[in-house]
Amino acid sequence: MTLEELNRALLVAPFHRWLNLRMVEADAERILIEMPWRDEMISNPTLPSMHGGILASLIDLTGFYTVLATGNMCKSTADLRVDYHRAASRQTLHAEGRLIKAGKSLSVADVRIHDEAGTLVASGRGAYNM
Amino acid sequence: MTLEELNRALLVAPFHRWLNLRMVEADAERILIEMPWRDEMISNPTLPSMHGGILASLIDLTGFYTVLATGNMCKSTADLRVDYHRAASRQTLHAEGRLIKAGKSLSVADVRIHDEAGTLVASGRGAYNM
Amino acid sequence: MTLEELNRALLVAPFHRWLNLRMVEADAERILIEMPWRDEMISNPTLPSMHGGILASLIDLTGFYTVLATGNMCKSTADLRVDYHRAASRQTLHAEGRLIKAGKSLSVADVRIHDEAGTLVASGRGAYNM
Amino acid sequence: MTLEELNRALLVAPFHRWLNLRMVEADAERILIEMPWRDEMISNPTLPSMHGGILASLIDLTGFYTVLATGNMCKSTADLRVDYHRAASRQTLHAEGRLIKAGKSLSVADVRIHDEAGTLVASGRGAYNM
Repeated sequence: MTLEELNRALLVAPFHRWLNLRMVEADAERILIEMPWRDEMISNPTLPSMHGGILASLIDLTGFYTVLATGNMCKSTADLRVDYHRAASRQTLHAEGRLIKAGKSLSVADVRIHDEAGTLVASGRGAYNM
Repeated sequence: MTLEELNRALLVAPFHRWLNLRMVEADAERILIEMPWRDEMISNPTLPSMHGGILASLIDLTGFYTVLATGNMCKSTADLRVDYHRAASRQTLHAEGRLIKAGKSLSVADVRIHDEAGTLVASGRGAYNM
Repeated sequence: MTLEELNRALLVAPFHRWLNLRMVEADAERILIEMPWRDEMISNPTLPSMHGGILASLIDLTGFYTVLATGNMCKSTADLRVDYHRAASRQTLHAEGRLIKAGKSLSVADVRIHDEAGTLVASGRGAYNM
Repeated sequence: MTLEELNRALLVAPFHRWLNLRMVEADAERILIEMPWRDEMISNPTLPSMHGGILASLIDLTGFYTVLATGNMCKSTADLRVDYHRAASRQTLHAEGRLIKAGKSLSVADVRIHDEAGTLVASGRGAYNM
């Protein structure tokens, strides 16, 4: 699939449109997805910090599209792990996915999320049903 | 904290208001949070199925409020694990949180999400920084 | 399978014999496995504390036998999560497994490990390939 | 710490001696630990396959020493995640650890285990209390 086709597939999901996602890179090695800030994503309004569930969503979907973009058909997420490293605030986030293992029944991809300054905000991995 | 105070704290977060959350039970044993369906939550529009990131968000925040509701002050999520068991569609979901361990630096809570028919949709656990 | 048959199956594995495991309960709800201390399990010799890898092993295998004991055939562990709550020292540990979900391709079981005083030492969950 | 000092620290643990571990590389980027086969590690004797708990142990301890070797003092494992990719049999395994995040209260390291042919056997990450 081309980057344009992957973006079209990505934005079929209403939640991905709500997140304003854009895949900006996709090759055999990795994919990159950008997600801009929106105020409904706030958890603690005094910082304001992005909700951990939004970061988990970004890790889940970036891992899923990493498996797809590397030419493996996956159907759904089996399980997800997220580590939170630092609060993110009012910034576009950059999620980078890398394939760890393409399996017959399960595939695994790693994802790291950086902010605009390049700081690691969250990281994790998903296992996907093939 | 009373159930009313917990609900007020819960809805300080703009993302929790977007999710239309309501805590309906909270005691020393467990808490229960309800989340109604909204169409922006859709992942696959042909089913339509709820996005795994929304389920991860519900597990993250229910675990966090489980730690709080049992009288322990937590600051943020350290890490999260989610297992997806079955697709959820156009239903109010019920998240039940139980405290596993109240620790000095980390606390752990388990969460299960059921649909209206009582089917287990997703489950997981969060570790929270104290 | 009866408890005796489950114990025979458990002890086919050389590593389970090295761990001196004994399943002491198994029903539709849960299983209980006991593991005595041995000095080769030590991580920090000054405490001395049991190695986290031994606790991870006990969670992995107890989850696996929980799936089996509840009448579901599983082949191998897909993935594992372990939370460490407190150091264990020179004691028999008690691992309790409960089935969370019996699935077609993946099943999930939760495990808690207590020491002789009933303190929670570690907990976690495994996902098992069916 | 030099590689020799790290090996000395590693082998203070009786369980690490039982595993016959040897750290063969350690720099600011990553560490490499070798673990030879021993028959007590077997899970399924007909293959024979290495027990998943041994692989979890190797991931746990390699992540721990990755944090240490990059100059950060950690005390214990907070939690551990392991994905199993392929059975390992009668081979020396090579565990490679990389630091993901050095934090004030928690640090995270990723670990991959390869067999002698370079096949990925298992991977995962640990979060460590500082």
